[in-house]
Amino acid sequence: MMSKSDFFHDAAILDANDPLKEFRSLFCNPGERLVYLDGNSLGMLPSATAGYIDDIVTRRWGERLIRSYNEGWWNKPEELGARIARLTGARPDEVIVCDSVSVNMFKMIVAALREKEGRLKIVSDELNFGTDLYIIQGAADLLGKGHRLHLMKSRDGITVGDDETDGAIDNDTALVSLSHVSFRSSFMYDMPGVTSLAHERGAFILWDLCHAVGAVPIDLNGANADFAAGCTYKYLNGGPGATAFMYVRKDLQEKLSSPIWGWWADADPFSFNTGFVPAGGMRRFLAGSVPILSSSTLETSLDIFEKAGMARIRKKSLEMSGFFLELFKRHLAHIGFRLGSPNDGAHRGSHISLRHPEAYRICKALIDESEGEWTIIPDFRTPDNIRIGFAPLYNTFREIAIITSELGRIVRDKVFEKYDTEKEVVT
Amino acid sequence: MMSKSDFFHDAAILDANDPLKEFRSLFCNPGERLVYLDGNSLGMLPSATAGYIDDIVTRRWGERLIRSYNEGWWNKPEELGARIARLTGARPDEVIVCDSVSVNMFKMIVAALREKEGRLKIVSDELNFGTDLYIIQGAADLLGKGHRLHLMKSRDGITVGDDETDGAIDNDTALVSLSHVSFRSSFMYDMPGVTSLAHERGAFILWDLCHAVGAVPIDLNGANADFAAGCTYKYLNGGPGATAFMYVRKDLQEKLSSPIWGWWADADPFSFNTGFVPAGGMRRFLAGSVPILSSSTLETSLDIFEKAGMARIRKKSLEMSGFFLELFKRHLAHIGFRLGSPNDGAHRGSHISLRHPEAYRICKALIDESEGEWTIIPDFRTPDNIRIGFAPLYNTFREIAIITSELGRIVRDKVFEKYDTEKEVVT
Repeated sequence: MMSKSDFFHDAAILDANDPLKEFRSLFCNPGERLVYLDGNSLGMLPSATAGYIDDIVTRRWGERLIRSYNEGWWNKPEELGARIARLTGARPDEVIVCDSVSVNMFKMIVAALREKEGRLKIVSDELNFGTDLYIIQGAADLLGKGHRLHLMKSRDGITVGDDETDGAIDNDTALVSLSHVSFRSSFMYDMPGVTSLAHERGAFILWDLCHAVGAVPIDLNGANADFAAGCTYKYLNGGPGATAFMYVRKDLQEKLSSPIWGWWADADPFSFNTGFVPAGGMRRFLAGSVPILSSSTLETSLDIFEKAGMARIRKKSLEMSGFFLELFKRHLAHIGFRLGSPNDGAHRGSHISLRHPEAYRICKALIDESEGEWTIIPDFRTPDNIRIGFAPLYNTFREIAIITSELGRIVRDKVFEKYDTEKEVVT
Repeated sequence: MMSKSDFFHDAAILDANDPLKEFRSLFCNPGERLVYLDGNSLGMLPSATAGYIDDIVTRRWGERLIRSYNEGWWNKPEELGARIARLTGARPDEVIVCDSVSVNMFKMIVAALREKEGRLKIVSDELNFGTDLYIIQGAADLLGKGHRLHLMKSRDGITVGDDETDGAIDNDTALVSLSHVSFRSSFMYDMPGVTSLAHERGAFILWDLCHAVGAVPIDLNGANADFAAGCTYKYLNGGPGATAFMYVRKDLQEKLSSPIWGWWADADPFSFNTGFVPAGGMRRFLAGSVPILSSSTLETSLDIFEKAGMARIRKKSLEMSGFFLELFKRHLAHIGFRLGSPNDGAHRGSHISLRHPEAYRICKALIDESEGEWTIIPDFRTPDNIRIGFAPLYNTFREIAIITSELGRIVRDKVFEKYDTEKEVVT
């Protein structure tokens, strides 16, 4: 068994040889004591963003005022969409930035179910994120046609098997709606394989990219995916509640109608005609005014992704999770921790879940600012997951050594027993 | 006929006696040459907002990171809603800040139509804003029950008569959906009267408050209104695309279901259960993550409204429009301008439309930064309206004198003939 000093030594070597090491300085690091491993929940602040937003506020809003709409704001949804398209393997005119993931999924799910009239099955899985399942349930309730949601099972609570997918998607399936990377276990679906299976059976597929975009390379066009949505506040570092994006494959766009006929989706919004005529292309999927401050943050964060490139980001992500799994096996597996994520990096996103019966209190001890040498922020996901996110643009191997060392200490010294199990609002 | 120097003199006296005159200094004024009369489209930047947003970005996002959700962000929709409730005569638990006006109207219109099953008529008017009518059309198309939209006519293109309302709202009417203050003509409905008529005939009523909130006193509870929505980027100075709000009367909230079952609307969102259970109260009308930067701007702008009070704001607004109408009659009515708004302030919001066959080119001349002594920003609304917004918190009587003087000069000297009629994207 390696000692603590051994793995800090290894981490130092890995950090020294990290080709992305310079990127950490492009983010605001709020102090040496903080180890932030929750970029899968809310990404860190890029250093350039604060000044950029201040310019948007003071100059573009404060001085240019309404004129800024003609100086770029009106086209912001498409322009930012085109940049996210590059990260997701889509054409520039297939992605638009607007609304929240929930609202965007609603638009596409309703459009998809109406287009596949007569097919009544919707396939998802029991590992999927709340909103994905809830939006489907709401859409089914709204349409009142008897759509039923089939949740594929997971045998291990971590993955969904190919046999399960093959058995679930059938000729009555209107829509398959899955997270590319699962929020809790980090399980990553084979996007081209499942998309192709859905298409063989005549179903549409919608990919939730929230835990995938900026974390793993995505090729929506390569997979011939129909629909996708994602948030921009996790790995994309767009800030709290940053505007989401949606993708509709080019040939589908004008066949479909969003159920929310907002004026930004109208072909001629300043005509103020009394009858709605949908705009061409992705703009027909807009609704109302797009939040400019909560979208403009993406300008500076996407700069960083374009400079780093998804291939290098993925390579480092796999090295980080590989290093962590090594440490987990040597130092954590025998003190009550179990792996809550696929062991094979090829089937995993950029976070890892550790399971432990005392996961919640362990998280509290890690986060407690008065406890230990560091304040470590992962997140807890019920019932027993500690989710550890690796954001290759700013996380270091040293931080992986730190969380491993602290997880060991908190469990071995029973530090978690100091904490109660009462939950915070946001866990 | 008063000379130009006369009305500048009168304006100076009115400004000197203005009890709200100190409030102008609470806003960023981007230079003495700019006369901004478009606060009805995008309100000016409160001076305190830039620093406040910088703190949200650098400290709350940059340093506190995900912890900020437990330190206030999770409850931001209700907290800001309670403050907007004070401006709109609602209970604190009847208003929530989320999404855009279009999305919020969609939620309420669909909920209302489903609740009034069997009634198939929806009443609005031909003066209403695009999105209000389009969202209704989309909801009717979606529900597929044969709902029809009845647009009440305006005889003068400015107002809708009581006889028209009385004739249109009948026992088949499910929903009456109107703008409290009309976006183009500034016509203001009698909210208690029309609400009471809708209720007598068994219909719900939804008030669009976009051009009313922060401009006129509103008493939703006093009128017993069912639903309302509004934006926060006009008179409320929340900035470009700032998060909207919605109101549902207390006794209706738990009878109704939003069609968009997003996870922020779930009773226990961090349980990640696979089945949706709507939260109690207004939270059930949330969808996904609320944009924090584009909502936090409201903190500093609402401070100003709470200090000024809607009664004082309305008083000054009426004085401003009264002064302007005086000048209009003396200096503009005989050179081709017509009034596109009600003459009586009791039936008007805080903006006035002037109509002129050359309205578009006149606007271009006013706005042109290289033309004349001032850059004057009103806005154009098709086909022939120049919309002039009076924001009593920052506009001055002198600015009214300036626009009057410039409108006269541009028409008398035919300055507008220098401009072509090609439209900008955003007019």
